[in-house]
Amino acid sequence: MSIAPEIIARLKSAAGVNGFSEDPGEIAPHLEEWRSKYRGFSPLLLKPASVEQVSAILAICNETRTPIVPQGGNTGLVGGQIPFHGEVLLSLSHMNRIRHVDADGMSLIAEAGVILADVQRAADDTGRLFPLSLAAEGSCTIGGNLSTNAGGVNVLRYGNARDLMLGLEVVLADGRVLDLLRVLRKDNTGYDLKQLFIGAEGTLGVITAAALELFPKPAERVTAFAAVDDPKAALGLLSRLQDATGGLISAFEIMPRIGLEFVLLHIPQTSDPLRAPSSWYALVEATSAAHFDLQSIVERALEGNVNDAVIASSETQRENLWRLRESLSEAQKKEGGSIKHDISVPVARVPEFLETATRAVLARIPDARPVPFGHIGDGNIHFNISVPEGGDTPLFLARWDEISHIVHDIVHEFGGSISAEHGIGVMKRNEIARYKSAAEIETMRALKRTLDPNNILNPGKVLPD
Amino acid sequence: MSIAPEIIARLKSAAGVNGFSEDPGEIAPHLEEWRSKYRGFSPLLLKPASVEQVSAILAICNETRTPIVPQGGNTGLVGGQIPFHGEVLLSLSHMNRIRHVDADGMSLIAEAGVILADVQRAADDTGRLFPLSLAAEGSCTIGGNLSTNAGGVNVLRYGNARDLMLGLEVVLADGRVLDLLRVLRKDNTGYDLKQLFIGAEGTLGVITAAALELFPKPAERVTAFAAVDDPKAALGLLSRLQDATGGLISAFEIMPRIGLEFVLLHIPQTSDPLRAPSSWYALVEATSAAHFDLQSIVERALEGNVNDAVIASSETQRENLWRLRESLSEAQKKEGGSIKHDISVPVARVPEFLETATRAVLARIPDARPVPFGHIGDGNIHFNISVPEGGDTPLFLARWDEISHIVHDIVHEFGGSISAEHGIGVMKRNEIARYKSAAEIETMRALKRTLDPNNILNPGKVLPD
Repeated sequence: MSIAPEIIARLKSAAGVNGFSEDPGEIAPHLEEWRSKYRGFSPLLLKPASVEQVSAILAICNETRTPIVPQGGNTGLVGGQIPFHGEVLLSLSHMNRIRHVDADGMSLIAEAGVILADVQRAADDTGRLFPLSLAAEGSCTIGGNLSTNAGGVNVLRYGNARDLMLGLEVVLADGRVLDLLRVLRKDNTGYDLKQLFIGAEGTLGVITAAALELFPKPAERVTAFAAVDDPKAALGLLSRLQDATGGLISAFEIMPRIGLEFVLLHIPQTSDPLRAPSSWYALVEATSAAHFDLQSIVERALEGNVNDAVIASSETQRENLWRLRESLSEAQKKEGGSIKHDISVPVARVPEFLETATRAVLARIPDARPVPFGHIGDGNIHFNISVPEGGDTPLFLARWDEISHIVHDIVHEFGGSISAEHGIGVMKRNEIARYKSAAEIETMRALKRTLDPNNILNPGKVLPD
Repeated sequence: MSIAPEIIARLKSAAGVNGFSEDPGEIAPHLEEWRSKYRGFSPLLLKPASVEQVSAILAICNETRTPIVPQGGNTGLVGGQIPFHGEVLLSLSHMNRIRHVDADGMSLIAEAGVILADVQRAADDTGRLFPLSLAAEGSCTIGGNLSTNAGGVNVLRYGNARDLMLGLEVVLADGRVLDLLRVLRKDNTGYDLKQLFIGAEGTLGVITAAALELFPKPAERVTAFAAVDDPKAALGLLSRLQDATGGLISAFEIMPRIGLEFVLLHIPQTSDPLRAPSSWYALVEATSAAHFDLQSIVERALEGNVNDAVIASSETQRENLWRLRESLSEAQKKEGGSIKHDISVPVARVPEFLETATRAVLARIPDARPVPFGHIGDGNIHFNISVPEGGDTPLFLARWDEISHIVHDIVHEFGGSISAEHGIGVMKRNEIARYKSAAEIETMRALKRTLDPNNILNPGKVLPD
């Protein structure tokens, strides 16, 4: 498709003199996602700086039936932010003001283009915590986080992005602005429209700002890296830690030995924190906003329940432990590529799921190397399978769909989700039709038709063909 | 309106032999809400016992354009559950099974007609906590709680009904069943349809079952009743208590002296727990799932920060303290009726709001008696105004709309909500149009048209004329 020059001219005018680019060099970084799995093209990058400009842009797009793809920090992993068909690209990067911080009221209002780490910092500067935290936090934006209902490492304690949102400002497909930026803990005045736009990946409206909930800053933080026999033992440990701390575990991640080995091999300045190898590891963090001597509590809970463990005694040690977990994706990439799954099942069923899915994958590719890791406390595992040692990566990756179908069928049998935190984008939009009922898919379509009747907002994403 | 006999016959057949009543005596209790403010009529009460029967009933209603009003425990306060125009009444009371409790997985699946107290008990029996708690918990149902996004006394710590919901089973207007009963902590596979039905008061679909989140049961619980100078001092106390306990305050309620006096006067077996009268009181509860000696922590935080306080030393004492708060509505009714508001504002602005609204009400009715009380920790105040001493109640109540407009205008100025936890029903459906933007109202209407094109589901509720 191509966009008529007069439409381009109107859109540029609506975005203001500093609000657009037609320079292919400037547009290029916005067209490809970081794993190079998806690539698009676009004649025009718009960078509006105000909700009024976003409104004017969408009104023009709607009137002229011009498709447009909203984009935050371009860190999505399912292709949701890529203009595959030459759509106009709408970057929210210039809407990057923190409009208000209310430390007493425990809330903050940020525009969609604010980098997640900057939201965290703004909260921290006033003595509060914004708990959303994920590997891409240095470049992803809060608008993208909300549009994909981002998860990350603190969901166990604080919930997903949806749970941290108090209010939204949204521009509808036809340019009308929904001002739902209320900073209230309770508001039952009709349909809660803001929920519609969380996790909708920009297909129902464009989020331009959000009111976010803040929390007390931790006074104590204990980070431990523990050797456990298997995922079942990890869940048992989590349960004992939650009992001992009264629910103060903020993160609980698992990784298998092979994952740690990939990290030690490929990531500089990493070392095994424990003396003897273990088949599995749990990375645990407990935090409290008051002083309960959490370290002693965690130490006692670990004693006798794990084979070995280390507790970070400094912020540097803590960062080193977290690096082992956070660099796993990068290490796996350097090890030759992997077929990735972002799945969840009911928490208690994770061990059984891992056994079943591993067996099924190895039945197809006997020397494939499963490296399942992640947020076991939320039932969310990144069930990634690395290419066989010395194997041919392109040949291996060519079997992505075949392997994914097998894994996703098992996820479905376990009552799980085939996208726990990454969203649908283009990657899984046809896959969801295999597992959702006709009533569910048809209701999704009906919402899309209602809110975006001309199908201009991120067309071809989320909904199945 | 009247419903054709052949439609009545089809509906009775769909509901099964034990699933209906045309007996006016049996229908009567379903037609009036407990304050006698709203009254309706209906020729037919349906009491289906399965989702298949609900599906068959709605399919018939949709085909024949027969309006139907879903009802839970009939405890709503805004008329949402009343068939004002002779609609068919759909009671979910026979769908009252707890389908599954998973103590390890911290979840429970209950049908819509399960009484809230029974949900709490089922959780408690397996050593878990279901934290939703409100005065009507002995008769309200979980389906009604979710359809109105109920709040109550533990929102501060655990959130509203929406936040406690993991999955839903919903019957759409045309009888199709949406099975969204997944028990997952993370699921980003497209639009989160279940959110649509929370707080929609049965106008978009009928909730037939829900998966609910459970929590660790408190190991320690401290309940205190403290004398404070005013709402500002109460908020200061809350802030110090949260700092001291690291956020373990599960309830924080305020009431003025006049409210306590009404209770002492009208409710048997109540007594003032403190020696000297105070202008305001705070009822505080802190809970912890582990042993932190919370009582000492709370005692230290109260010392020097309140004028006087008592800490419950037994479950009986605790119940006595809670009775002072929970019987306030009843006491106010016995004192001669009141004009009620269920409002919220940003937490930090509650004191200023109370001053402004009290002044405005007294400017109109100088001897009216404001009795504002409730969930100050959520910014949610029941801003109720009792009839002047010895005044004429009907004459006073006749000024309800006049006074409400004044109060709601102030709420709006403060960025608040005119219905924090009770919902809209018929009571506030035209009132919301005064405060919401045209875009918001129009989007609500568009959702209604999409999900209930024949307007059979609880017509005349929630949406403005």
